[in-house]
Amino acid sequence: MVLTLQHLANLTEGKILRGDPAESFSGISSLDFAKRTEISFLGNGKYHALFHETKAGAVLVSADHPCGPADTALVQVENPTLSFSKVIDFFHASKKSFVPSIHPTSFIDTSVQLDPSKVCIHAGVVILAGAIIGDGTEIFPNAFIGENSRIGNDCVIHANVSVREECVIGDRCILQPGVVIGSDGYGYQFSQGKHVKIPQLGIVEIGNDVEIGANTCIDRARFGKTLIGDGTKIDNLVQIGHNVEIGRHCIIIALTGIAGSSKLGNYVTVAAQAGIAGHLTIGDKAVLASRTGVTHDLEGGITYLGNPAQPIREELKLEALRRRLPRLFDEVKAIIKSQERPSS
Amino acid sequence: MVLTLQHLANLTEGKILRGDPAESFSGISSLDFAKRTEISFLGNGKYHALFHETKAGAVLVSADHPCGPADTALVQVENPTLSFSKVIDFFHASKKSFVPSIHPTSFIDTSVQLDPSKVCIHAGVVILAGAIIGDGTEIFPNAFIGENSRIGNDCVIHANVSVREECVIGDRCILQPGVVIGSDGYGYQFSQGKHVKIPQLGIVEIGNDVEIGANTCIDRARFGKTLIGDGTKIDNLVQIGHNVEIGRHCIIIALTGIAGSSKLGNYVTVAAQAGIAGHLTIGDKAVLASRTGVTHDLEGGITYLGNPAQPIREELKLEALRRRLPRLFDEVKAIIKSQERPSS
Amino acid sequence: MVLTLQHLANLTEGKILRGDPAESFSGISSLDFAKRTEISFLGNGKYHALFHETKAGAVLVSADHPCGPADTALVQVENPTLSFSKVIDFFHASKKSFVPSIHPTSFIDTSVQLDPSKVCIHAGVVILAGAIIGDGTEIFPNAFIGENSRIGNDCVIHANVSVREECVIGDRCILQPGVVIGSDGYGYQFSQGKHVKIPQLGIVEIGNDVEIGANTCIDRARFGKTLIGDGTKIDNLVQIGHNVEIGRHCIIIALTGIAGSSKLGNYVTVAAQAGIAGHLTIGDKAVLASRTGVTHDLEGGITYLGNPAQPIREELKLEALRRRLPRLFDEVKAIIKSQERPSS
Repeated sequence: MVLTLQHLANLTEGKILRGDPAESFSGISSLDFAKRTEISFLGNGKYHALFHETKAGAVLVSADHPCGPADTALVQVENPTLSFSKVIDFFHASKKSFVPSIHPTSFIDTSVQLDPSKVCIHAGVVILAGAIIGDGTEIFPNAFIGENSRIGNDCVIHANVSVREECVIGDRCILQPGVVIGSDGYGYQFSQGKHVKIPQLGIVEIGNDVEIGANTCIDRARFGKTLIGDGTKIDNLVQIGHNVEIGRHCIIIALTGIAGSSKLGNYVTVAAQAGIAGHLTIGDKAVLASRTGVTHDLEGGITYLGNPAQPIREELKLEALRRRLPRLFDEVKAIIKSQERPSS
Repeated sequence: MVLTLQHLANLTEGKILRGDPAESFSGISSLDFAKRTEISFLGNGKYHALFHETKAGAVLVSADHPCGPADTALVQVENPTLSFSKVIDFFHASKKSFVPSIHPTSFIDTSVQLDPSKVCIHAGVVILAGAIIGDGTEIFPNAFIGENSRIGNDCVIHANVSVREECVIGDRCILQPGVVIGSDGYGYQFSQGKHVKIPQLGIVEIGNDVEIGANTCIDRARFGKTLIGDGTKIDNLVQIGHNVEIGRHCIIIALTGIAGSSKLGNYVTVAAQAGIAGHLTIGDKAVLASRTGVTHDLEGGITYLGNPAQPIREELKLEALRRRLPRLFDEVKAIIKSQERPSS
Repeated sequence: MVLTLQHLANLTEGKILRGDPAESFSGISSLDFAKRTEISFLGNGKYHALFHETKAGAVLVSADHPCGPADTALVQVENPTLSFSKVIDFFHASKKSFVPSIHPTSFIDTSVQLDPSKVCIHAGVVILAGAIIGDGTEIFPNAFIGENSRIGNDCVIHANVSVREECVIGDRCILQPGVVIGSDGYGYQFSQGKHVKIPQLGIVEIGNDVEIGANTCIDRARFGKTLIGDGTKIDNLVQIGHNVEIGRHCIIIALTGIAGSSKLGNYVTVAAQAGIAGHLTIGDKAVLASRTGVTHDLEGGITYLGNPAQPIREELKLEALRRRLPRLFDEVKAIIKSQERPSS
């Protein structure tokens, strides 16, 4: 899989500024890691230093680019970052492991609905009775799909993922390794000195174009559904409790926990290690900074920080004042001392 | 699997207030999700609004209930929540996947002790030499049970769980998918510029009626045992360090970490994202609010908050004062200004 | 596998102070858990109380030891802790599960490079095309090694680990159960109302003598490599973002998150539940206390605390002042009241 400089210019609708149109390249990388046989891009002024030291064979640049190393071929394009995506697609397409096939060491119940000519089921995968696997979906080794669960079209289910029974996953979803979908919600009733398990009879329903990070867990509802809306992207090691409802196109970063029955609107951003207590509502386009702790409903469209959460400007002000506490204590001490002084 | 209204009344020892005794229902749900063919319950006054809009075919209500939708059958019982558990059991029992069997794609060492007529071992499960699996236990696909580990009776070990060697799990335990039991404790000795691994030779011992959430990790002891007491329930993505001892009937919520050798009494509650440093003791019935950080021993029977933890009332008072810092700074500024004013 | 008291003295180059040289012991444990047939050690004065109550059959002690139970055999050595390591090795060596073998239920692509006489591949393991497995490496049940990944010599890959394609792992590494290596980095470009996935084309490269805790996740780089240096030890449930570079001999404790492209020097310690934002640099030998939140570059050689991080002494001082806020508020109130008092 190679691309000549001329092909690169054609692919990106760019102009060769420097270099041999016949020189060929076999891959892509960032400016700092690229080798002589690889293509890179200069997408941002802050990478000029890396550009001057790059060993890349060819670099996509914009109109106002610096010269860079003399032996590096240059192709000028309007937006190097966007154009580079086309180059990525070119090389990436050749790397896909999807080959329609069902590995003989996988176990697929006879009642499972799938088209063997249109799915790729790797070794050791187990799919139980009544499940449905959509066309174009690839399931990596040792993943598990429970009874009656439905996986949409063109999904990628990575190794050692567990999707428990009755859950629904839309089209074009990606589940990174170790993801757990449909674990029991955490619900107990305290009775006669013991925590008695409350059956968790609902499911998890995930929309289209959702990605879920490695070892993230999404609990099934007590009744009804835990919902993840279309286009939402969840990072690694996130905990989503039972009956949570997350809207469309949300961003939830690593090590965040969302407790049972809370509802997030659309386009909500939750940064890393945040926590949202149960039964709360977060409005559309709210942004929670890292480590924010939410204990009451939050209006949309506002950026929050702190524990408990408040608008970020107020929290930053309080933090600034906290750092000035030593001076404040000194000032108050001085005032008291001045008062104690016998008046002359 | 259906239940007529008359059967429902018999099952719950209730009285039909409205509806055709012969009408039949095929499932259960909450008021907001229930369909015409499903049974629900009104367990709490705050759900009156949902009750008025429910599409459930039948609802369990208490004596002082409102009327609800005219076409919804009603059965009056003393305690709708408790009675509904019987209905759940009725439908849930039919959903169990337990069928005594050993799947041909599982691998079970010949020295493993189990009664093939009384366990359910799914596809891809691996059980190594010397392990013991109790009667009535179900092990889901691709789970792993290490050498000489013992799983009690009537347990459910979900998909992709790893129980390493020599560990002991009691009766009626539930391990959600991805749980890791018996990973090495985190112990190193710094010597000649390197962290040298200290062998972790102990085990994990888990009592009866314990549930452990998805992707939670419990490390094996250096020597002796990491202990989880009877009836304790642990949520998803919790980290339990080596030689930790947790008493009976504790509650440990998601993303909490408990460092090595700490001891929790009985009936301790640890809310989400809390952290407990190593070698500490937490008394019976202590409650740690979310995100509490514990760095010293805590007396039982008290609710704590903050980092480092203190009784919740004191921490809430400090937080309230923190929020009033802007005014305090202004007041002190004004005092200083008034003092600087030349006295008339 | 037994050791007589005389053998124990020989092994540890110690002197029998008490006991029958011919008495034999079959294992080891800590003072509080040891049985009559086991050997223990008194490594630290704070364990004197445990020593007086131990049931161990034999105990390694130093010169200035107390007597202990009269029926406990004693062997005096220079450093009981170090000498005990030899005893651990003696018993531990016999417990290793490594037997060169490839289990028939594993699936190994024909193009995988390994020496069947020098590796131990357990049941259900899947290794895809082009992977390389070094001599002396043991891979536990249901683990997954992706295409073209390389595992070094003498590694232990525990059950249900997922190593995705193209990743590189050095020699003598230990991956606890459920570890995920090479999951996609979390990168999206917001375009036309959607988060569009940025391909993550790089790899993860892990040095020699690295240990990674249960269910920890290390994301692959966008381009280039996410790097973990030689001798670094990572605890359970840690999140390492794409393009992170961690130096040699670092310590990263449980539930910590390190965001994309941050760089840690050598000998850095990061305690539990800490968080490091993206694109930051942490100097050699920096120490982050538990729960520290890092939002700017940190100089090496200093211990930090707080969120945002600052040198621990300053943060502890602020926390002490915060706890004195009630008195400060009272004092200011009193001053204001005294000012309002009409002067006599």
